Amino acid sequence: MDRPIVTVLTDFGTKDAFVGVMKGVILSLQPDAQLVDLTHRVDQQDVQQAARVLRYSVPYFPPNTIHLVVVDPGVGSTRRPMAAKTPHGLFVAPDNGVLTDMLTGDWQAVALDNTQYWRTTEPSHTFHGRDIFSPAAGHLAAGVPLSSLGSTITDPVLLPRRSFSMQSDTELRGEVTYIDHFGDVTTNIAPIRWASEATIHLSRPDSPIPISFEAASARVVSGWNTLEGIKRTYSDVTVGETLALIGSGGELELAVNQGSAARTLSLSVGDPITLSFAPSTVS
Amino acid sequence: MDRPIVTVLTDFGTKDAFVGVMKGVILSLQPDAQLVDLTHRVDQQDVQQAARVLRYSVPYFPPNTIHLVVVDPGVGSTRRPMAAKTPHGLFVAPDNGVLTDMLTGDWQAVALDNTQYWRTTEPSHTFHGRDIFSPAAGHLAAGVPLSSLGSTITDPVLLPRRSFSMQSDTELRGEVTYIDHFGDVTTNIAPIRWASEATIHLSRPDSPIPISFEAASARVVSGWNTLEGIKRTYSDVTVGETLALIGSGGELELAVNQGSAARTLSLSVGDPITLSFAPSTVS
Amino acid sequence: MDRPIVTVLTDFGTKDAFVGVMKGVILSLQPDAQLVDLTHRVDQQDVQQAARVLRYSVPYFPPNTIHLVVVDPGVGSTRRPMAAKTPHGLFVAPDNGVLTDMLTGDWQAVALDNTQYWRTTEPSHTFHGRDIFSPAAGHLAAGVPLSSLGSTITDPVLLPRRSFSMQSDTELRGEVTYIDHFGDVTTNIAPIRWASEATIHLSRPDSPIPISFEAASARVVSGWNTLEGIKRTYSDVTVGETLALIGSGGELELAVNQGSAARTLSLSVGDPITLSFAPSTVS
Repeated sequence: MDRPIVTVLTDFGTKDAFVGVMKGVILSLQPDAQLVDLTHRVDQQDVQQAARVLRYSVPYFPPNTIHLVVVDPGVGSTRRPMAAKTPHGLFVAPDNGVLTDMLTGDWQAVALDNTQYWRTTEPSHTFHGRDIFSPAAGHLAAGVPLSSLGSTITDPVLLPRRSFSMQSDTELRGEVTYIDHFGDVTTNIAPIRWASEATIHLSRPDSPIPISFEAASARVVSGWNTLEGIKRTYSDVTVGETLALIGSGGELELAVNQGSAARTLSLSVGDPITLSFAPSTVS
Repeated sequence: MDRPIVTVLTDFGTKDAFVGVMKGVILSLQPDAQLVDLTHRVDQQDVQQAARVLRYSVPYFPPNTIHLVVVDPGVGSTRRPMAAKTPHGLFVAPDNGVLTDMLTGDWQAVALDNTQYWRTTEPSHTFHGRDIFSPAAGHLAAGVPLSSLGSTITDPVLLPRRSFSMQSDTELRGEVTYIDHFGDVTTNIAPIRWASEATIHLSRPDSPIPISFEAASARVVSGWNTLEGIKRTYSDVTVGETLALIGSGGELELAVNQGSAARTLSLSVGDPITLSFAPSTVS
Repeated sequence: MDRPIVTVLTDFGTKDAFVGVMKGVILSLQPDAQLVDLTHRVDQQDVQQAARVLRYSVPYFPPNTIHLVVVDPGVGSTRRPMAAKTPHGLFVAPDNGVLTDMLTGDWQAVALDNTQYWRTTEPSHTFHGRDIFSPAAGHLAAGVPLSSLGSTITDPVLLPRRSFSMQSDTELRGEVTYIDHFGDVTTNIAPIRWASEATIHLSRPDSPIPISFEAASARVVSGWNTLEGIKRTYSDVTVGETLALIGSGGELELAVNQGSAARTLSLSVGDPITLSFAPSTVS
């Protein structure tokens, strides 16, 4: 049998031994686990950002992977710890909305209220990652069925989806959602993809028919800056030049070839981004 | 047989390939090892801090885990490299006191002076992590007995324990020992725990009978700041408010709900912390 | 059979989930892979620095290790993705010179142009690490032969070697190539080694006969600073004092005992370093 994969996603940073300790707990229950760090540098207690990491990462793991998420501003309060089985993977996380995008298709979820599967019946009040969440992940990895971990829940907390809005048939307004290590700027103008050599399709929140437009006709405006056209890749412009393109997560992205768009365009998470384009002549 | 777990704890940071190289050496000897990073961001050459990481982490790993520690200000000098087998785990480290708290119960230790188990009989003068310590961890993981690695030592370097001091029967003085990623402030007022719903027990260095007091009567003073009472968890106060609580390592902790106590209270490692409480009426 | 080892070396940092996603892709193809991070903090798009990490790290891994390198300023352009089998290991990387030092001895290389081994026949334009390189590493780890991954290439991009230069028979000039986590300063005055208790041998670029000189006679000059003699290890000088020594990678290194030579000597990558020594009396 393949070794069970357990990914770990937290806002714990890497300076402390918190993540190592959680791995110790998991390995105590399933020594054969294949452990993978997604990242531990989610901004502190930023549940939206952790949800984005899951959206970006989960599709590239086998669907029997266990994803352990501990971004938990409500630790020690009444928020429920939970686990879920979905077509995308198994998840262990606080019930704070971080799993919103994962709870699609045919899913089941439980609250982690069976204390028999906690590390101790007197867990700490500040580190449920160690005492409740990691044990759940370890037990799942060891083959314990989801339903044993606690009582079924059907009303998990769901985050509102922050999508772009249509200003007109040829203009829409979104916002910056994330800035990565390279200073590339990701937006909520998504999901977006190349439909052909020159044409782009953008799914809209309110209709199954995508918006279709020519890449060359697009204009992306951010503050005083205007980027003409949507390019394929960084090297389509000269080094140091700004461009708009479709990022690897299927989101409209602003970048600088071998530079930082966040710095060049002075952008932060939440800043507005406008996309306009010529009306499409053929559908 | 379960895969042997080897944890790695250093002050090497993650920018360089030093840690990766040590893992290469271990895997060359035991390809099946399960490698876990505790942290590589111990402050440079801070043996006390590395000892604290072990104290905090080791209890959550199986007792046959091999813990490799390379925080080694004396590399290349006459300090001995050592390995030890204890009820808490197996350890490979420089003999500089970092294992002080692990050498309890029934332990044995050897100096790593059998050069046959080094990576080379001409080790570098600056990277014993690669040439002496990792090979020892790898050989232990491959089943080589501790006693083969070198000659017995019975006089390892031990660090003095820096405990709090009693100022009176109802007041004691400790100090800040660590500030974590979230800005939570850990002290040496420990080990401390909830004995009941409202009562706290604090072990004292000079007696087997713990100090017992009501959580609500406690007062924690740090510089100009006074925190009233000991709380259970961060969310027992409003967002942004300071509190004292018992941290996940069983130490008195100062925190801010969804904020940084180190910043709010301007605290650094070594700063004094005073705890006072009402005399207990029942034991 | 031993689990296949796959090392990962990127300039992606650890804030984003890019590395985690690549590991998901590899584990989807070979769930039993033993994954090891070399580092993800190579300076952005610094191919020379990534090449140095390989030079430093690869010798400590078994020769059947697969080394995945994604430092790729030309992603999405016409630069070829490639894989190579060498006496030192297997490699998957962009064809941008990063493998220069690994392509010695009896090696074979292919361009990754067999799209059947890509993750998708329509890879993203910005994340070949996920869509082309990691799949190649995963397939190699699963036993796919190198030759299946694409067509043979015999003209990989090679970087010029930036070596030191002889100014006279007793003086040479090199430069700073790297500054590590501790502030230790590495130079291109290499390969250099202790030939005996007091004598040092330095290989020269233009001759098979090494330069031989007494360690005590050496003088290392960097700007206004002069270091007398080459020492064995940090603790050969008092705490806080500067010294020259031979680093663990076989390069002339400038250091401060328990301090930062980069800060003390104000050194950056590219700064000139001069080494002079007394003419050797015996060879």
